[in-house]
Amino acid sequence: MADEFSIIRDYFKHLSANSVQVVKGPGDDCAVLQVAPEHELCVSTDTLIAGVHFPEDASAEIAATRTMMANLSDLAAMGATPHSFVLALTLPQADEAWLAEFAGSLKRLTETHHIPLVGGNLAKGRLSMTMTVMGQVPDGQSICRDTAMPGDLVYVSGSLGDAGHGLSLVLDKAEASYLTRRYTHPTARLALGQALRGIATSMIDVSDGLYADASHLAAESSVTLTLHQEKLPISDELGAAVGREAALKLALTAGDDYELCFTASPDSQQRIDEIAKALNLALTVVGEVTVGDAEAVVLDRNGEALVASGYTHF
Amino acid sequence: MADEFSIIRDYFKHLSANSVQVVKGPGDDCAVLQVAPEHELCVSTDTLIAGVHFPEDASAEIAATRTMMANLSDLAAMGATPHSFVLALTLPQADEAWLAEFAGSLKRLTETHHIPLVGGNLAKGRLSMTMTVMGQVPDGQSICRDTAMPGDLVYVSGSLGDAGHGLSLVLDKAEASYLTRRYTHPTARLALGQALRGIATSMIDVSDGLYADASHLAAESSVTLTLHQEKLPISDELGAAVGREAALKLALTAGDDYELCFTASPDSQQRIDEIAKALNLALTVVGEVTVGDAEAVVLDRNGEALVASGYTHF
Repeated sequence: MADEFSIIRDYFKHLSANSVQVVKGPGDDCAVLQVAPEHELCVSTDTLIAGVHFPEDASAEIAATRTMMANLSDLAAMGATPHSFVLALTLPQADEAWLAEFAGSLKRLTETHHIPLVGGNLAKGRLSMTMTVMGQVPDGQSICRDTAMPGDLVYVSGSLGDAGHGLSLVLDKAEASYLTRRYTHPTARLALGQALRGIATSMIDVSDGLYADASHLAAESSVTLTLHQEKLPISDELGAAVGREAALKLALTAGDDYELCFTASPDSQQRIDEIAKALNLALTVVGEVTVGDAEAVVLDRNGEALVASGYTHF
Repeated sequence: MADEFSIIRDYFKHLSANSVQVVKGPGDDCAVLQVAPEHELCVSTDTLIAGVHFPEDASAEIAATRTMMANLSDLAAMGATPHSFVLALTLPQADEAWLAEFAGSLKRLTETHHIPLVGGNLAKGRLSMTMTVMGQVPDGQSICRDTAMPGDLVYVSGSLGDAGHGLSLVLDKAEASYLTRRYTHPTARLALGQALRGIATSMIDVSDGLYADASHLAAESSVTLTLHQEKLPISDELGAAVGREAALKLALTAGDDYELCFTASPDSQQRIDEIAKALNLALTVVGEVTVGDAEAVVLDRNGEALVASGYTHF
């Protein structure tokens, strides 16, 4: 069987890149990295486990894509530019076809998003991958969760609920479609995150469901986020697949969309509209920030409060 | 059962620290970090899995200590100063006693080594932990594996083989002793690594066994490392426990000691002796670097070449 060092050499070493930013890539005790002058480093880590975060029988391409996108989405939510990443991969065996597909998919992702692999670890065990991504942002310009201000509007990018229904379709072995791809191949909103530097007052990515993630933002900022269920952006495909009522419910509670939820002053509306146009991406006002308990509140079309919940990991 | 957010709040949030280096700790999409001006960032990741890298029934304290030390040892081997770390923890269930002991042990380690926790991930599954450590080193001063020079001497810190025998004792449920603690509570040689900046020409930590790790160093530097088995530093405890012949074999092939193996010009001998004295740590010449095949060669007391091997992960 291929050993650790030959696996790294054959499948992963070429995912690195020589650049000013990467003084030393994989193969030493540590990677050695340069952060740009007057920039801060943003770091996030995520573990995806087969059978928990993606189906046991998911392809290596889907495993690679979802792991990378879940991590890049955290960089997007800070307004950061990708810098580099390390990958700790645990595999039941050295399956060469799987490794080739996994590394090939990662290579495409690293090239598309300009994020070289700089280090990693291989271990034997149930299939899981822990990725730690690094990004950079000009000093003081990261967009955090604890800085929403009363009077701000609450925005959401793209459409919500697609990935939640897409997962059901994947588990039912449905053919690939727009909705399944929203689950299997999510898009981290990196360009949007960067464009919102200096505009968004706070931001979070929607990975656990809008209600849950808006609740985190409200709690960290000690404000109330009021969301209007009728305003949630629903794709035509999701509406056609499950009907508007079910779609609105998914939009509120289903995870995995990796859209961005952010707050901004009403004075920024024109600039945000311009960003939406430039990126060809819907940016929808779904609510507002007020002084109040540190929580998210959802109102139905009659202005009545709904009770919702999000994905819990434990 | 405790949920993800309450576990993070109750057990892990206080492992962070407010400092100039940590602009934003755990709780946001990313940690936001400052790297010191004119310094490079060193990054390494390691996964430890219960039943593979530590005994299934090892205490939370041992799991925490071994994970932290394996990672810090990679920083030591670059000559880096600890900066911060992220932790991806996978647990079968939220066992509060285990979590309290694990977090308590980590807290002591973060304080001792001035390395705050800045982010992480919690997932449900078989016990494993992936730690990604970050360190910093003045620009251009990291000590790599690919820069050993013919004519250099090969050094090893401390004593070798203790942890290998310590593991056997732990598996046999022996009482705690110097040898078991060398396995359960290894010491990353951080002060030594930093002291060797500008002195060591190359360095690696001894985690897979001296022969295996010296072979990596030889391969990366494209030189021959000749090791003299008789010169390997053996502790009195190991010699007494297994006899000199078995001790020398363990010293060559057993892993987990987390000592440093480095090369340096013979001109540096006096400075290295001073470092050994200042740190109260043996630094022993065990061989030399020559032009030749990119491999480690081990000679016995008669100058005959031995065949050895190290730990392989896969």
